[in-house]
Amino acid sequence: MRIDILTLFPEMFSPLKTSIIGRAVESNKLEINVVDIREYTLDKHKKCDDTPFGGGAGMVMMVQPIASAIEAVDPNHEALRVYMSPKGKTFSQKVVLEYAKLDRLLLLCGHYEGVDQRVIDLFIDQELSIGDFVLTGGEIPAMAVVDAVARYIDGVINGESLKQESFASGMLEYPHYTRPQEFMGLKVPEVLRSGNHKKIDEWRAERAREITEKNRPDLINKE
Amino acid sequence: MRIDILTLFPEMFSPLKTSIIGRAVESNKLEINVVDIREYTLDKHKKCDDTPFGGGAGMVMMVQPIASAIEAVDPNHEALRVYMSPKGKTFSQKVVLEYAKLDRLLLLCGHYEGVDQRVIDLFIDQELSIGDFVLTGGEIPAMAVVDAVARYIDGVINGESLKQESFASGMLEYPHYTRPQEFMGLKVPEVLRSGNHKKIDEWRAERAREITEKNRPDLINKE
Repeated sequence: MRIDILTLFPEMFSPLKTSIIGRAVESNKLEINVVDIREYTLDKHKKCDDTPFGGGAGMVMMVQPIASAIEAVDPNHEALRVYMSPKGKTFSQKVVLEYAKLDRLLLLCGHYEGVDQRVIDLFIDQELSIGDFVLTGGEIPAMAVVDAVARYIDGVINGESLKQESFASGMLEYPHYTRPQEFMGLKVPEVLRSGNHKKIDEWRAERAREITEKNRPDLINKE
Repeated sequence: MRIDILTLFPEMFSPLKTSIIGRAVESNKLEINVVDIREYTLDKHKKCDDTPFGGGAGMVMMVQPIASAIEAVDPNHEALRVYMSPKGKTFSQKVVLEYAKLDRLLLLCGHYEGVDQRVIDLFIDQELSIGDFVLTGGEIPAMAVVDAVARYIDGVINGESLKQESFASGMLEYPHYTRPQEFMGLKVPEVLRSGNHKKIDEWRAERAREITEKNRPDLINKE
């Protein structure tokens, strides 16, 4: 799978070299291509933003540099082109599974007040938000998308982990314990040390339901 | 404001040096203290994770290194201690405004299958999720929290931008346009070039409602 990321801040994407995502890239299962939009501006001062028509605070990213960058990177529109924006539909594990099936994904990161609407009208397939909060730019949300999607690339993560995790069953995940058996007076629940796998599974299912009811009752009502 | 971030991957936080957050740090309005949990393990091989009691895939972060790191960084429990986890309550602009009022925030990043439950029971005030998707760790979500909260620190962002943006009014933001007036046949809407501020405000309010109805009808039903 290939993911193109278009941004004014390419240096922000160094975290994708770390840990599991870094391993996916090294094994050639994932190609991440970070593109500096500024390299595509025709403005002699390398300007990429300007004040909004109609007035208002902040700067708007101009259409020309982004249009040229997209046309250079994806001339035949083979990628699903996604603009990271709080105005978009909300990212979820369902979207992760859809994206993980694609050969190519293009993520456009806005910054400042966002991009000229004509970028969206002419070039973008989907606007995507990672949640109901506002960030200084689309760079951190794009990293979240890459990370979530990369986990589903064959061999990146142990398949069992994917089945047991939060949202996979419509429930949040049960609590984990590891050594030592006792810490500051708190012991690992007896059942987890029993070796009785049926009882362990039952205990975990009960705890998963409990924590979902407490923290996210909306997930249970969805069933 | 001071934000402590506890992680096994401190090198992932370089993006916070960029752009607006970097400026907040440079102006001493925001102190970001990234703490390597591995420096606090008492294990002679510097081990910080172990297999789960009761079996199952993946590794669990051990309680001792995290407990020691939290006690070193926040000995008097002055910080609101938040564990980044898909099991937590959902992050939103309302939470951003609450956090922005704090003097100290501590963000604990899990990795692999997460942390030993006793970390949460003994040391954590809140579990927080940035959305219904699973990532390889809490590092990218922690960056999202820092970015969203830093925007509200006095002087970091133009106050007008904060008032006009998505969610501030319960609606998504209206579309933006900047120069040139025409691009690939698409013109800037006439009204934005009219200089009639009442009409511009009306047009923007209509477009904001339209895009909210299309992409996020749930926000309108909340009213």
